[in-house]
Amino acid sequence: MPYPEEFTGIGVTSIDKWDSPERVTYEAKKFDPHDIDIQIDVCGVCGSDLHTVQGHWRAIRESMVVGHEIIGTVVKIGSECNSDLKIGDRVGVGAQVLSCLSCELCQEGNEPYCAEFVSCYNRPYKDGYVSQGGYASHVRVHEHFVVPIPENIESELAAPLLCGGVTVYSPLKRNGCGPGKNIGIVGIGGLGHMAILFAKAMGAEVWAFSRKSNKRNDSLKLGADHYIATSEVNDWEQSLIHKLDIVLVCASSLEHIDLDKYIKCMKIGGKIISVCVPHRDEKLTLSGFGLMGVHISNSSLGSPQEIRDLLKLVSDNDIKIWVETLPVGVKGVTEALTRLDKGDVRYRFSLIDYDKEFPRE
Amino acid sequence: MPYPEEFTGIGVTSIDKWDSPERVTYEAKKFDPHDIDIQIDVCGVCGSDLHTVQGHWRAIRESMVVGHEIIGTVVKIGSECNSDLKIGDRVGVGAQVLSCLSCELCQEGNEPYCAEFVSCYNRPYKDGYVSQGGYASHVRVHEHFVVPIPENIESELAAPLLCGGVTVYSPLKRNGCGPGKNIGIVGIGGLGHMAILFAKAMGAEVWAFSRKSNKRNDSLKLGADHYIATSEVNDWEQSLIHKLDIVLVCASSLEHIDLDKYIKCMKIGGKIISVCVPHRDEKLTLSGFGLMGVHISNSSLGSPQEIRDLLKLVSDNDIKIWVETLPVGVKGVTEALTRLDKGDVRYRFSLIDYDKEFPRE
Repeated sequence: MPYPEEFTGIGVTSIDKWDSPERVTYEAKKFDPHDIDIQIDVCGVCGSDLHTVQGHWRAIRESMVVGHEIIGTVVKIGSECNSDLKIGDRVGVGAQVLSCLSCELCQEGNEPYCAEFVSCYNRPYKDGYVSQGGYASHVRVHEHFVVPIPENIESELAAPLLCGGVTVYSPLKRNGCGPGKNIGIVGIGGLGHMAILFAKAMGAEVWAFSRKSNKRNDSLKLGADHYIATSEVNDWEQSLIHKLDIVLVCASSLEHIDLDKYIKCMKIGGKIISVCVPHRDEKLTLSGFGLMGVHISNSSLGSPQEIRDLLKLVSDNDIKIWVETLPVGVKGVTEALTRLDKGDVRYRFSLIDYDKEFPRE
Repeated sequence: MPYPEEFTGIGVTSIDKWDSPERVTYEAKKFDPHDIDIQIDVCGVCGSDLHTVQGHWRAIRESMVVGHEIIGTVVKIGSECNSDLKIGDRVGVGAQVLSCLSCELCQEGNEPYCAEFVSCYNRPYKDGYVSQGGYASHVRVHEHFVVPIPENIESELAAPLLCGGVTVYSPLKRNGCGPGKNIGIVGIGGLGHMAILFAKAMGAEVWAFSRKSNKRNDSLKLGADHYIATSEVNDWEQSLIHKLDIVLVCASSLEHIDLDKYIKCMKIGGKIISVCVPHRDEKLTLSGFGLMGVHISNSSLGSPQEIRDLLKLVSDNDIKIWVETLPVGVKGVTEALTRLDKGDVRYRFSLIDYDKEFPRE
């Protein structure tokens, strides 16, 4: 059975075979009158996709199809939808596809923190259906989590904004990144490279931190004002004592982050925010009064409104994130996942050529 | 030699004799033209005094005289002083007696975080003189750290405001405590009981948290709107999910604080702030993404301006903190330290009768 009963995707059948994805078909989620069906055109490849198929966070469903940076075309709109979207519109879906929409958190734009959060893939809806992601022909999503894409952003550059982009944009925005602020970005990879671009567009002065020198040229090209190779300069923190307003930790693990040094770099009242999603066993140990005058927190994704705000920032400033495209399909997904596992990407993959892998009716 | 060359105090000669203080005399700090000499009338007894004489933080100087909640009378003013203080004025001195006064931190009201911070006792000045505290006849302090005391606050109720009071007031004020805010105070002792009084005076709704029920009546009398005995109610956090804006941890150790539960109680963007000064070996362990949307930090003391602001709050609202007085002297200091060690105080000691122990010339 083809669409609309079944979708086709590139899935992983078990975590020990995460690097051998297969073409799979699976039942579509039951259509709700608030749902929108999207024929997918592009999907970004996020670190979370790899964490999920490698089983770092939780068990995976059968024929697990990941991907939560989806750009596609509206092909069906539920009878009770209230959004302005029309058939044929280019839209995006990020890492969240449902929340209760009625609690205080949802009302105040904190949908990612709602207790009824459903992630784009590998989470059960209330009826037991486990969500499937965007390495696929289609996705079916509640209208609240479908956002229009501004015309001047190419789809392969828009896709990574939907999860990775808003994950760094949200904490920057919420914590006052802007003119006159000194922002540190730690870990220059998929997330970090976007954080540099956005923090600069928001008007801040930006310090890029990476362990070695090999990201220096890219960081400066991206707009960073300063670059510090933390493993190559002794006492690098001494030049930055009480200098930074925000440090955004974008590394894939906290293991190699010398938090005590970053704490010394913070202004009093400054904020260290981690968007790192490490292995579930990883712990953070601090001395009983090691955070004197400095706040530390984790941040999770961003709201649909923050995705809209980010898209506007990118559109208005004609920001170009750095993306390598790969064709969707067994070969392209295998390459994307295995290269991401080795950190071999500058700085984000987008899967394209969906019409070749999933021919349109 | 009497004042002004020497001061007399009640001191501890070694950490293993912390509970056998003696009457001691010691050289006064060299008089600086910005210094003010204060004849002491009252001194509060702070948890830090006990930590210090027990050697929890660092080695102690010979004849260690602690006490950093000092109320006294101005008896000498340096030739280069610019403050409005006059001989005979009633003034206070808190836990900080010097900073560089020129760095950015000092300029912005963050003197307690200045690298040249000198604490009221047991810290060397630049000339090597190790500071001595307020269980003594006199103290000699830079004018910047001497504040006038409003007329309607009794000295024994004013003293504990100088360190303990401002330590809880500063993070409440800096993090937006006020009308419409939900504030949790964890640990109802010397600090916590003041935090309840101040948070209420600032207009917030207050939840008091203590392990057992035995502080319930006092907490409600102090003005708390709610009380939770955390060791007596299973899943107490379930009624407070995403409810609190600020949680101020006033406990003497983090060991018995179930941080994960408090994190669940926080609004997104909410702040957990610890003013707990635990043993130097104590560690805080968090899961790699255990602070989702919630900030945690430590806070240190408050600035001289914040002490002034707190004194105004207390004066304007006629706040009465709960103080037990003891006469200064070997007997009174012994009782204060040993009872504080057992937690036997409701809720703060002030040492009084200085004129009997240290007769005035």
